[in-house]
Amino acid sequence: MGLNENIRNNIRQVEPYIPGEQPQNKVIKLNTNENPYAPAPGVEQALQSMDLDRLRLYPDPTAELLTQSLADRYKVDKDQVFVGVGSDDVLSMCFLTFFNSDKPILFPDITYSFYKVWADLYRIPYECQKLDADFHICKEDYYKENGGVIFPNPNAPTAIYENLDFVEDIIRHNQDVIVIVDEAYIDFAGKSALELISKYDNLIVVQTFSKSRSMAGMRIGYAISNPTLIKYLNDVKYSFNSYTMNQTSLVCGAEAVKDETYFKETVNKIVETREWAKEQFKELGFEYPESQANFIFVTHPKLDAKQLFTALKKANIYVRYWGSERIEQYLRVTIGTKEEMETFFSFLRQYIAEHGGR
Amino acid sequence: MGLNENIRNNIRQVEPYIPGEQPQNKVIKLNTNENPYAPAPGVEQALQSMDLDRLRLYPDPTAELLTQSLADRYKVDKDQVFVGVGSDDVLSMCFLTFFNSDKPILFPDITYSFYKVWADLYRIPYECQKLDADFHICKEDYYKENGGVIFPNPNAPTAIYENLDFVEDIIRHNQDVIVIVDEAYIDFAGKSALELISKYDNLIVVQTFSKSRSMAGMRIGYAISNPTLIKYLNDVKYSFNSYTMNQTSLVCGAEAVKDETYFKETVNKIVETREWAKEQFKELGFEYPESQANFIFVTHPKLDAKQLFTALKKANIYVRYWGSERIEQYLRVTIGTKEEMETFFSFLRQYIAEHGGR
Repeated sequence: MGLNENIRNNIRQVEPYIPGEQPQNKVIKLNTNENPYAPAPGVEQALQSMDLDRLRLYPDPTAELLTQSLADRYKVDKDQVFVGVGSDDVLSMCFLTFFNSDKPILFPDITYSFYKVWADLYRIPYECQKLDADFHICKEDYYKENGGVIFPNPNAPTAIYENLDFVEDIIRHNQDVIVIVDEAYIDFAGKSALELISKYDNLIVVQTFSKSRSMAGMRIGYAISNPTLIKYLNDVKYSFNSYTMNQTSLVCGAEAVKDETYFKETVNKIVETREWAKEQFKELGFEYPESQANFIFVTHPKLDAKQLFTALKKANIYVRYWGSERIEQYLRVTIGTKEEMETFFSFLRQYIAEHGGR
Repeated sequence: MGLNENIRNNIRQVEPYIPGEQPQNKVIKLNTNENPYAPAPGVEQALQSMDLDRLRLYPDPTAELLTQSLADRYKVDKDQVFVGVGSDDVLSMCFLTFFNSDKPILFPDITYSFYKVWADLYRIPYECQKLDADFHICKEDYYKENGGVIFPNPNAPTAIYENLDFVEDIIRHNQDVIVIVDEAYIDFAGKSALELISKYDNLIVVQTFSKSRSMAGMRIGYAISNPTLIKYLNDVKYSFNSYTMNQTSLVCGAEAVKDETYFKETVNKIVETREWAKEQFKELGFEYPESQANFIFVTHPKLDAKQLFTALKKANIYVRYWGSERIEQYLRVTIGTKEEMETFFSFLRQYIAEHGGR
């Protein structure tokens, strides 16, 4: 349609993020870091016993049911918890609320691709800091003047986890700005930065229900920080949309948090499968940074990543491939069930037998 | 907590919108324009037969199940439909996407209070146009140069509906900018501006599941326009959060749209109760602009609105009161069930008997 020029000039132009494919047919889906196990059984029960009449009313704008259950689980006060429609919503609200300086915010060059997108969307200046040759964050790069810092730990798509001393060094060197530690994958890794919340006023930790809690389909994320920063976040959220969390998310989210046994059991299964998968990859000649997430970032000295990606897709096995600078030869493989991974490795063995080298 | 000055200087300061109260105890709730009837029966069934395993996966980012059902219902193509987390999310995305001019956007002085909040949040210049003495929009006020136009029809909290010729005049005089008609209450009123979509490239119509479809708790809103404008909206949405609609919203929303019989039945019941309520108000000496929504905006020449509001609240009957300029003496009363309204009017009769005048 030939759009009026004035209208077109006043439209916000963005480079939209392209999410991993969500195939509708039966495939082995190792491309978007979802959990291969269903949510906790209590979630199903919660859905089935939902009071339908409650749906005609607006949900509780403070989402207390959910913030309280997270507060109990993480031993903080409920006014230290902010919830949103997935951690994307939470992170985006953080960008909008806290990154209003003229100085650039800092984040790694290879990292979650949404950071750049939100910075562009909100016109926040930013400067990417190069990971080293082994894909590690160089903490000293974050010691210069800046408008804020954000990085995931473990980082994505590298899967590398940095220990808490490393994380604390970055926070301590940046007490003049907000530091966001994006812990989407922390439950598959090591210590969370949550224990630093009481020590540093400038720290926000963001986590999600989409990975370790098997609920990507429910869209629940949260930030934990001190009550002052959480209040600022809520002020912006209320000015944006007072009722972001629908009634089913509140009820199912609270239910999921309660079942610690199921949570540990499924996380452990994924970690076990990951460790086994690492051995399999190694045997087949793949290389990867040490993974502590629910995915492995692999490359093979003799196989072209793009060709392998395409061959896998043809065989109905989806993994993630970007083809962007420095990671053209890498694939990100989500840890599925043991059975899915066995099928995946059978394919790889066959593929390598047929396509020995690049 | 004594927040670091630099951090504080870089925090976005907003005047948060204060939503109507969501009381937890048993009250007659006539304060947030919810539907007194439960969602369509199919919605309950959809929730109960949800595939729990589906929740571990990200929802379809294109929300096709829902956009297709809306497209079928409104006889447009699915690429003419944009869905969001309530119409607040949809409207806010429209502001962010389309209102990027240096010229002020225009909306009524008495209207949905979020317009001002989004404009402030996104730093969009705006200019409010005064409703006339009878609370009608003066369409000529919208014929001057501007950066965009938005108004609700019916308007809130006045409940006044303007006919389609009136709406078309505003659209026709503004073909250089985007005009958003916010039709949250249209199903209780008259003709929708949807039929003008094919005639004007600059028109976006926004509707919601929160009122006529009894699903405020599910957070579903939508915009219908031409495919070009919908694509721009989707680009911004994807850059913000690719997966905003959770799986339950997609399934329940699609189910609700299918049940036209239930929809008409409940809408008709509310309209009947509204017409009866108007008579009751009149008999008690209340005055109100002609309502074509699911609420009535009332004033009484001899009763102080704030005092009445407080007395109602004490009696566990919640209505909405703002106390802001020009509407200090008005209350907005949502249409509940006939039984709820009878209790409400019994209270009013008693109150008037005791407090004859201001």
